[in-house]
Amino acid sequence: MLYLCTPKETKLLGTLLRHALPEVELAIWPQAVDNMQVRHIVAWNPPEGFFANFPRLEAVFALGAGVDRLLLRTDLPAHVVIIRLTDAGMAQQMAEYALYGVLRYQRQFDLYQQQQVEHRWTPLPPRLAHEVRISVLGLGAIGSTVATTLAGLGYSVSGWSRRPHQLTNIACHYGRQALDTLLNNTDILINVLPSTPETRGLLDHARLAQLPQGAAIINASRGDQLDLDALLERLDAKQLRFAQLDVFDMEPLATGHPLWERSDVIITPHIAAITLPDAAVAQIADNWRVMQRGGTPSGLVQRHLAY
Amino acid sequence: MLYLCTPKETKLLGTLLRHALPEVELAIWPQAVDNMQVRHIVAWNPPEGFFANFPRLEAVFALGAGVDRLLLRTDLPAHVVIIRLTDAGMAQQMAEYALYGVLRYQRQFDLYQQQQVEHRWTPLPPRLAHEVRISVLGLGAIGSTVATTLAGLGYSVSGWSRRPHQLTNIACHYGRQALDTLLNNTDILINVLPSTPETRGLLDHARLAQLPQGAAIINASRGDQLDLDALLERLDAKQLRFAQLDVFDMEPLATGHPLWERSDVIITPHIAAITLPDAAVAQIADNWRVMQRGGTPSGLVQRHLAY
Repeated sequence: MLYLCTPKETKLLGTLLRHALPEVELAIWPQAVDNMQVRHIVAWNPPEGFFANFPRLEAVFALGAGVDRLLLRTDLPAHVVIIRLTDAGMAQQMAEYALYGVLRYQRQFDLYQQQQVEHRWTPLPPRLAHEVRISVLGLGAIGSTVATTLAGLGYSVSGWSRRPHQLTNIACHYGRQALDTLLNNTDILINVLPSTPETRGLLDHARLAQLPQGAAIINASRGDQLDLDALLERLDAKQLRFAQLDVFDMEPLATGHPLWERSDVIITPHIAAITLPDAAVAQIADNWRVMQRGGTPSGLVQRHLAY
Repeated sequence: MLYLCTPKETKLLGTLLRHALPEVELAIWPQAVDNMQVRHIVAWNPPEGFFANFPRLEAVFALGAGVDRLLLRTDLPAHVVIIRLTDAGMAQQMAEYALYGVLRYQRQFDLYQQQQVEHRWTPLPPRLAHEVRISVLGLGAIGSTVATTLAGLGYSVSGWSRRPHQLTNIACHYGRQALDTLLNNTDILINVLPSTPETRGLLDHARLAQLPQGAAIINASRGDQLDLDALLERLDAKQLRFAQLDVFDMEPLATGHPLWERSDVIITPHIAAITLPDAAVAQIADNWRVMQRGGTPSGLVQRHLAY
């Protein structure tokens, strides 16, 4: 039995799952089920202890790309397979989100917005797309789409990830040492890394200080990777021109947080890339069938890597 | 002799022209020349009466795409050929400029900016690229690049122009009657039409009123095509969600103009697509050679069409 447990879009997801997997017996939380029958769960943020109810649970399909919170739970035994979404419509959304910040920087809409406040009409020297050096941290399904979309529009794009990648028109780097050099040559830093023990706190004071004068940062992954105090200090020092932030350590961001008031920070409420029910169910159904045939699903979480 | 007369980048343009057309005798205004020797002029906004000094003038290469001001001059006899820039790097710039407004609308950065002012964290229902209906007015070298760039990113793009066009993945329309229907089905209206007697005042009260509730408008062509009083009324009535304006009847926009103070209007100082010296000289040199061989240059202005 497949059990669906999600805080929103429950009805729609249920209908889509029934349609995509007609051969599967589906139950929808909080509907009562025979716990012994539940082998597979499709879930997002289920109640604490939820998974412990199902002794014969084999696999959890996460309704998102980031499984950091799932991996921190204590009710998921190590033998349970976790499958995350790898694109499911999120890659294009993330590319759009990043592109907005990139255009704001390159075409200087942030500076013109300030001029507008002052009723000032002053054309600034232009900056062409190829003159803007963008570094994308994370080159999985999402990061590689972000990078190639930007490169397709003429920007000079580098990528950085844990292991080597090859992407057309992207200068791909990997490993900690390469990161330092890369940051020195980055006008816009885009973070879409998964949150893992390795990446938490990655963008700390020392690393932000390596960005050149006037750089910008876009964080659309997880708040725990970016040190906000360090960011505020670099913004105050005018080393960084602006930040576009979708994710925070504590969400919602506290009403009194100093970030809200800054004209050099764009805050969005964790909407850079949301799960699209159609695309999510399509990936889950594909993976279900692959697993029935004994194959490896896309998005299979490798627990030792934490993503 | 080729005479260069331009208010800015004069030295750079002179160097580039000498390099691109080594066989041509080049003079640079205000350097004194034998007026009888001047057959070709490369110019942008030369002093009033300037062209009347050259009785054997054959052709003027404009350093821009819009020749509306040139055509209103009284010192350019009808037999003088006018060649305008058709792309010269401006098409991509215009696509970028439009794309910023498109992303701001689709990804609701304008609404999130307002939420930020209020320290409010409220995710809004997402809108996917293909759900956004964009209409591009003008399908020349610039408009077609804007349209195809947006279609390439997944938006539902229509185009409108004076005469029929065929563009892959763009629903192309032409003629006045088609415009009314198109406006009814437009979420974002992007104007890149040339300013001609036919297009001046095109976006008047009646036409803006045809846009659906919550539409946006991006004007990056000429200010005389958009009725600002009508625009302000439609913004005040909340029929239009926002406007992104690069061009105005009077430039610079008057310091006291009510547009500056609006949070639903983005003002930029005529920077959407500026002339890039390298690309401009490359097109001029190509056209020069084509004309020497008796061919038709790209961007040859058809005076009866006024562009």
